Amino acid sequence: MSSLANGQRSLFDASIRYPLTPPLTRGCPETSTEEIAYPVEVDYDYGRVPRELFAQQPGDLDQWAPILPPLVAPGLGEGGTPLIQLEDGVFVKDESRNPTWSHKDRINRCTVSAAAAIGAPGVVVASSGNHGASAAAFAARAGLPCIVLATADTPPAVGSFVSAYGAHVLPVAKEERRPLMRRIVDELGFHPLSNLTETHTGHAYGPEGYKTIAYEIFSEIGVPSAVYVPTGYGELLFGVWKGFTELRLLGLTERAPRMFSCEPAAGAPLARAVAQGLPAVHLKAGPTDAYAIDCDFNGYRGVITVRDSGGAALSLTDDEMRAAQRELSRTGLWYELSSASSLAGLRQVGERDRTGPVVCIATSSGFKDTGVGARPLDPVDPTWDSVLRRLKAAGLR
Amino acid sequence: MSSLANGQRSLFDASIRYPLTPPLTRGCPETSTEEIAYPVEVDYDYGRVPRELFAQQPGDLDQWAPILPPLVAPGLGEGGTPLIQLEDGVFVKDESRNPTWSHKDRINRCTVSAAAAIGAPGVVVASSGNHGASAAAFAARAGLPCIVLATADTPPAVGSFVSAYGAHVLPVAKEERRPLMRRIVDELGFHPLSNLTETHTGHAYGPEGYKTIAYEIFSEIGVPSAVYVPTGYGELLFGVWKGFTELRLLGLTERAPRMFSCEPAAGAPLARAVAQGLPAVHLKAGPTDAYAIDCDFNGYRGVITVRDSGGAALSLTDDEMRAAQRELSRTGLWYELSSASSLAGLRQVGERDRTGPVVCIATSSGFKDTGVGARPLDPVDPTWDSVLRRLKAAGLR
Repeated sequence: MSSLANGQRSLFDASIRYPLTPPLTRGCPETSTEEIAYPVEVDYDYGRVPRELFAQQPGDLDQWAPILPPLVAPGLGEGGTPLIQLEDGVFVKDESRNPTWSHKDRINRCTVSAAAAIGAPGVVVASSGNHGASAAAFAARAGLPCIVLATADTPPAVGSFVSAYGAHVLPVAKEERRPLMRRIVDELGFHPLSNLTETHTGHAYGPEGYKTIAYEIFSEIGVPSAVYVPTGYGELLFGVWKGFTELRLLGLTERAPRMFSCEPAAGAPLARAVAQGLPAVHLKAGPTDAYAIDCDFNGYRGVITVRDSGGAALSLTDDEMRAAQRELSRTGLWYELSSASSLAGLRQVGERDRTGPVVCIATSSGFKDTGVGARPLDPVDPTWDSVLRRLKAAGLR
Repeated sequence: MSSLANGQRSLFDASIRYPLTPPLTRGCPETSTEEIAYPVEVDYDYGRVPRELFAQQPGDLDQWAPILPPLVAPGLGEGGTPLIQLEDGVFVKDESRNPTWSHKDRINRCTVSAAAAIGAPGVVVASSGNHGASAAAFAARAGLPCIVLATADTPPAVGSFVSAYGAHVLPVAKEERRPLMRRIVDELGFHPLSNLTETHTGHAYGPEGYKTIAYEIFSEIGVPSAVYVPTGYGELLFGVWKGFTELRLLGLTERAPRMFSCEPAAGAPLARAVAQGLPAVHLKAGPTDAYAIDCDFNGYRGVITVRDSGGAALSLTDDEMRAAQRELSRTGLWYELSSASSLAGLRQVGERDRTGPVVCIATSSGFKDTGVGARPLDPVDPTWDSVLRRLKAAGLR
C-alpha cells in the first residue's frame, strides 16, 4: 500500500496546512518569527490506515509505508531493531542495530526519499558523526551526491566512518556550518537533511522515520509507562511520541507513555525552555563528552512532547552517563556516552510513578565515542606466573 | 520447545558418537592424530523437529531453540539480520547488524551457553577482535568472567571495543596465545570459546549458531545458487552449509547451494588443502590487511564444505577485496576489508554456473579496519569560493 500522507501542518497551529511537497525545510513560514522557528509535521489520511499493519511482526521501514512519507529512495533494511530486557520491566531499544549503526538511519530513509521525490541534484547535511554518515549511506544508495559539513574536532574513527560512503566531507568550525549549508541549498539546489533555522525545526519528514520506533515497541510490549530518550534537538523524542499518539488516534490503545528527554547537564536547552515556559532558548553549552547531543538551542518539538506527555526534561552529568554506560556494557551492550543518557535518566528518576514497563532508547554503538582508540592495550609479559599475577590482581581468583 | 540436540559426532566418521556434554573442545579424540585434528558436530533428533519452525518470519536465535544446543546463557537479540539486495539476484547478508556488530554473536550465544551449562567458572578466547568482543559481551550478559587473549597489534579502536565489556584483556604475541589458552583451560578450568588444536577444530557448538544464517536466507529467498563466505578457519562456511543440509534432511528443499570460501591470497590454507586433497595444511601467511581472516592453517570443516557442496576455495588479493569494499560502501554498506572478501569472490567468479540468486555474507562493520581513525579529516577553508572550488575539484558540478 502506498503512502497516505496528505500534507504538512504547523506544529504551533494545526489548522495551518501546506501541501506535502515541497517539504518545508525552514519550518512553518506562517507562524515562525525572528526569534523562534516552529516546525511542521506530516499529516495522513488516518481513516484509511489499515489496522492490520500493527498486527505484524516488525520488519524494516517499508512495512509502515502507508503511514510514512513516500519512500522513494531505496532502503538498507533500517528499523526492526531488537528490544533487549535489561532487568524486570526495563528494556533497551537497541538502535545500534541499524544499517549505519544508529537511529539516524530511520530519519535519512525518509529525508533522502524527500530529496529524490523532488528531483534534488544532491543532499547536504551538517553533522558531528552519526547523522552525516547515515545521510551519506542513504544518498549513496539512492545515487545522489552528498555533502557532509563535519566539525573539525570530529573523532578520527568517526571521520573514517563519515568519509566511507563517498560523500564530500568538509570539516569546518561548528558556527560556520549553518551559513555554508544555507548557501549550498540556495546556490546548488541541494536538499538539506539537517536544520537550517536559528531554533531547531529540522526536516519536516525526519521524525516520521523515528515514529516507527513506537510502533515496534508497541508490537512487542504494548504501551510502556515511560520512554527515556537521548535528546539533542528533540527530533527523536518527538518522533517516538508522535508514533504513540498515532496509535491512540487509530484506536489501538487508550494510553500513551510519559516521555523523558535526557540532555547533557552541560547544556540542556530543552530543560531550560521547559522550566521557563518558553518554546525555545539559546544558551552556551559547557564541555561534555556526550558530543552527539550537545546543543546550544532546542526545538519546539521537544517542548510539546514533554508537556503533552506529562514527562519531564532531565539533565544528566557526564558522570551519570558514564555510570549508565558502564552498567550497559557490563551486561553486553556497548553504546556511546550520549546513548547512555537514557538509562542515566531512568536511574535519576528511579521507580517514581512507574506503572508498567519502561523503555530506554540507545541510539548508537560505543565506536563513536571520543576516547575510542586513544589508548593502545597494555602489553603483558606472557609467562604463566605473570599472567596469573595479573589475573589475580584484577580480582579473578 | 527445548533443544533436540542428542549428542556429538565425528566429522571424519559420523558413526563415532559422543554424549552432548561435555562439549569436545579439542576435536574428536578417536580420529585425531598428531598431524591433524578432526572436529565434532552436534547431532539432533531430526525426526522431532517441527516443520512450522521454518514458516515464521526470522527473529533471533531463540526462535530456533529446538535445533540448537541448549541456549542456557541469555541472549542479546543476536541473529535475524537483513538480506540486502545489491543488484538483480545478488544479496548481501548483513551480519554487522548483530549485538556486537559481527557474525560472531551467533557462535558466542551457543558457546557461552555451553560454558554455563557445564558450570565453568569462566570463559577464555583468543581473538584479534570481533570474536573476543562478542565473547566478552555474552560472558558479561551471563555473569561469567572472561579472559581475552588479544594480539599486541590489535587496532586501537578494536582494543577499546574488546575492553568495553569488562573482560580481562591480555595482549600477547600471536604464537603465545594457544599455549596460554591451554594453560588457562587446564589450570583455571575456564571454558575455551576458540580453538585449542594444531589444525583448527574450534568449539563443537560454534557452527550451530552460524547455521541459523542458512535458515534465515531460506525463509527470505529459498535456497540460493551459491553462497560466498569470508573464510578464516572455515567455521562460518561450514555452519552455513550445515544449515542448508539440514533443510534438505528435513525435506524442506531438495537443493543446496554451492559454497565458495573466500580467503586472503596472502595465506589461503583452505585453498591449498583443497588443491592438494589434504584435510588440513600449515603455511606461513604473508601480509594482508584482512586480519580477521588471516590464518596459517585451516580446519577440516572447510574442506568438506567445499567438496560436498561442489563449490570452490577462492583466494582474493587485498586489491580485489578493496575494490569490493569500495563497491559496497558506494551503495551504503560499510564493512571491514575481510567482510568484503565475499563480494570480491563473487566478482572473481562472475556469472559462471549461476542458476539463481547468490548471497555474499558480510561479517562485520568498517569500524574494525586497521586504517580507521588513522587520518584526521582534511581541514577546509570555509569561504564560499574555496568550498565551491573544492566541490568542483571533486567533480560535483
